[in-house]
Amino acid sequence: MATPVRHLHQHDGETVTVRGWLANKRSSGKIAFLHVRDGSGTVQCVVSRAEVSDEAWEDVKRVTQESTVRVTGIARRDQRAPGGVEIHATDFKVKALSDDFPITKKEHGTAFLMEHRHLWLRSSRQRAALRVRSEVCQAIRDFFYEREFTLIDSPILTPTACEGTSTLFQTDYFGTPAYLSQSGQLYLEPAAAALGKVYCMGPTFRAEKSKTRRHLMEFWMVEPEVAFLELDGLIQLAEEFVCYLVCRVLERCRDELAVLERDVSRLEKITPRFPHVTYGEAIESLQGAGYDVRWGDDFGAEHETFLASQHDKPLFVSRFPAAIKAFYMQPDPQDEKLALGIDLLAPEGYGEIIGGSQRIHDYELLRRRIEEHQLPLEAFRWYLDIRRYGTFPHSGFGMGIERFVCWMCGLSHLRETIPYPRMLHKIYP
Amino acid sequence: MATPVRHLHQHDGETVTVRGWLANKRSSGKIAFLHVRDGSGTVQCVVSRAEVSDEAWEDVKRVTQESTVRVTGIARRDQRAPGGVEIHATDFKVKALSDDFPITKKEHGTAFLMEHRHLWLRSSRQRAALRVRSEVCQAIRDFFYEREFTLIDSPILTPTACEGTSTLFQTDYFGTPAYLSQSGQLYLEPAAAALGKVYCMGPTFRAEKSKTRRHLMEFWMVEPEVAFLELDGLIQLAEEFVCYLVCRVLERCRDELAVLERDVSRLEKITPRFPHVTYGEAIESLQGAGYDVRWGDDFGAEHETFLASQHDKPLFVSRFPAAIKAFYMQPDPQDEKLALGIDLLAPEGYGEIIGGSQRIHDYELLRRRIEEHQLPLEAFRWYLDIRRYGTFPHSGFGMGIERFVCWMCGLSHLRETIPYPRMLHKIYP
Repeated sequence: MATPVRHLHQHDGETVTVRGWLANKRSSGKIAFLHVRDGSGTVQCVVSRAEVSDEAWEDVKRVTQESTVRVTGIARRDQRAPGGVEIHATDFKVKALSDDFPITKKEHGTAFLMEHRHLWLRSSRQRAALRVRSEVCQAIRDFFYEREFTLIDSPILTPTACEGTSTLFQTDYFGTPAYLSQSGQLYLEPAAAALGKVYCMGPTFRAEKSKTRRHLMEFWMVEPEVAFLELDGLIQLAEEFVCYLVCRVLERCRDELAVLERDVSRLEKITPRFPHVTYGEAIESLQGAGYDVRWGDDFGAEHETFLASQHDKPLFVSRFPAAIKAFYMQPDPQDEKLALGIDLLAPEGYGEIIGGSQRIHDYELLRRRIEEHQLPLEAFRWYLDIRRYGTFPHSGFGMGIERFVCWMCGLSHLRETIPYPRMLHKIYP
Repeated sequence: MATPVRHLHQHDGETVTVRGWLANKRSSGKIAFLHVRDGSGTVQCVVSRAEVSDEAWEDVKRVTQESTVRVTGIARRDQRAPGGVEIHATDFKVKALSDDFPITKKEHGTAFLMEHRHLWLRSSRQRAALRVRSEVCQAIRDFFYEREFTLIDSPILTPTACEGTSTLFQTDYFGTPAYLSQSGQLYLEPAAAALGKVYCMGPTFRAEKSKTRRHLMEFWMVEPEVAFLELDGLIQLAEEFVCYLVCRVLERCRDELAVLERDVSRLEKITPRFPHVTYGEAIESLQGAGYDVRWGDDFGAEHETFLASQHDKPLFVSRFPAAIKAFYMQPDPQDEKLALGIDLLAPEGYGEIIGGSQRIHDYELLRRRIEEHQLPLEAFRWYLDIRRYGTFPHSGFGMGIERFVCWMCGLSHLRETIPYPRMLHKIYP
């Protein structure tokens, strides 16, 4: 039985066997330092010519990067060793020799790495980012589970192109067109009437011909929806959620953040309460800084970056002009021109990570908005039904997983936050 | 602040407010019994004419099924009450009157209920099944998280129709065809080389023109993949996994199983070790029972049901003829005609819930199999790469969430195990 590298520190002084892949080799004639990676971690194995058999030493000489290997030896705690443990080998065996591995220590272009994504995954930074992603995803589910939300998996195949087909992937569903979902929200609202607090988390799709570091064609999104929750409660939920996730990453991903050279002091500042401005205040502050924006404009990436850069913490922006927001947002009772929507802008230029709103719960108002937006009323019949049978105020938000992970890891491009990124014209492997 | 119905038992003797929907009303002149559902549970509220205002009593008289209501009163523990608590109302208010709710206590046809899925969700059996689903999904993630697996979300949009396009949903990906994934396995194997123990859980798609109670066009699947795991270890992992999930459902979904009238004694029998037969033994036992099957045939639903009905526990069947199994399965070293694959058949006629195998790790053998199956070698180049760069024995399985939930709930049709089922020609809402 092999011992996971991650658990080696529990076996100080014992004979252990580790199975994995050769990450690196340094040798100076009579002694070799082999870095062996097993998926749970990487350990340095010290092999002395004098202490192993001839066969084992032959294997040390012939082993290549990424070969599958088995090492047996004594585990020794050592402060200087990466991971705090070393193995003093008594046996070493190459189980499968690797061909020349395409990804080496030299610099590779992004196109090359993306073409070899299935192998690039083995690099230490890629493994670290995907472990952070895995932790974030579990933390999201734990957050909602602890708060007694019911998971409602919303459908991917949907029958209507509610807001035009231009950014939708389309498929044939036994003779009728179907579209890949861009959000589960509409499907969550009926479920909130059944189960009170619900959420979905799954892949969403956007066939957008854009090639920026902030866009993927296929990305994962988490969306909670809560019955009887109004805007203030939504803001509180979003803040609690983000703080919970950041805490969890700081608590359980220290090693990964170190590999990624993330400045954790920036993340340690993410504590309640987050600053909050209205859209109107944001416009004024942008104008004050010389940006050419007018009331009624939507924010661009540069505007988001400027607004967020004023704070160490994420910034809530609320009460947008209804005209630039989705048709289902509840109007502000103080000013009907405004919508009770929120965006949460991450610091350090990571842009919008959360968008949410209180939803219109009045049947007539929602029907009118659907017509004003020239949307097909018939397609929204079931959605309107929720306002006919015991309507209720409710609110929810959506958060893109990759954007959040990108921020946590301090990465510059979303492509490293998902195992197999789907980008413009890029769908291999 | 409203109190969730689920927490009312903590407030015995206190004044509480509950917000929710009217599930049922019985009235006898001077006293009314109102069942109020808030998503977390249902509570009986007793309203006496003498103890509430005229306005409140008017609302009691006019309230309709599914109206949104607010009740204030004293919570009283009462063994006889459903949920163990009653509210003795001091105030009652209709917040939004419901139109005549389409789903009543009378029998409705399935087509009608499916057309009204967005409202059907509110029925007690539907809520119970979806809460079991939610618990199962969290339990799956907890199982793998506790065992230090890394979540690897596999892509939905994939570039190649590996095994023919007949059951694939196709879409246009910026000028090239793409297909909706039927399994994440191929994408997990490279990740297992990076991270050792990985799993994915997401929607999968099958454009199959079949209309049975066991098929959905869109369903969720969980798939673990483990480096250095061989067939025996895989069987142990699958058994441990199923026992963990059943335990969790029994422990945390008692109320839901009661609503569904599930015979829990059947589930309580699901403990290690599960019985295990080889494919050859299974064929003999089918033949002995008079079934017309020959060595080399695949099992039909009737065969699976017969085999499983011999046991109270799920039944492992292993070592199938390689010819009827996927190209990537490792041959049995004892008999090259056999594949190191397993199926796990649930009792009570629920059929196959898990299918898995040890994967071929030899490059040449896998290349030959791809050719023998007349699959496009170029499309599998990246998949073959995993056998070039430090190959390793590995195994994994897949489990369909809906089939598992169907078994847990004792349901007869998969359509009630997913919030918005996608079936042949059925994609609304």
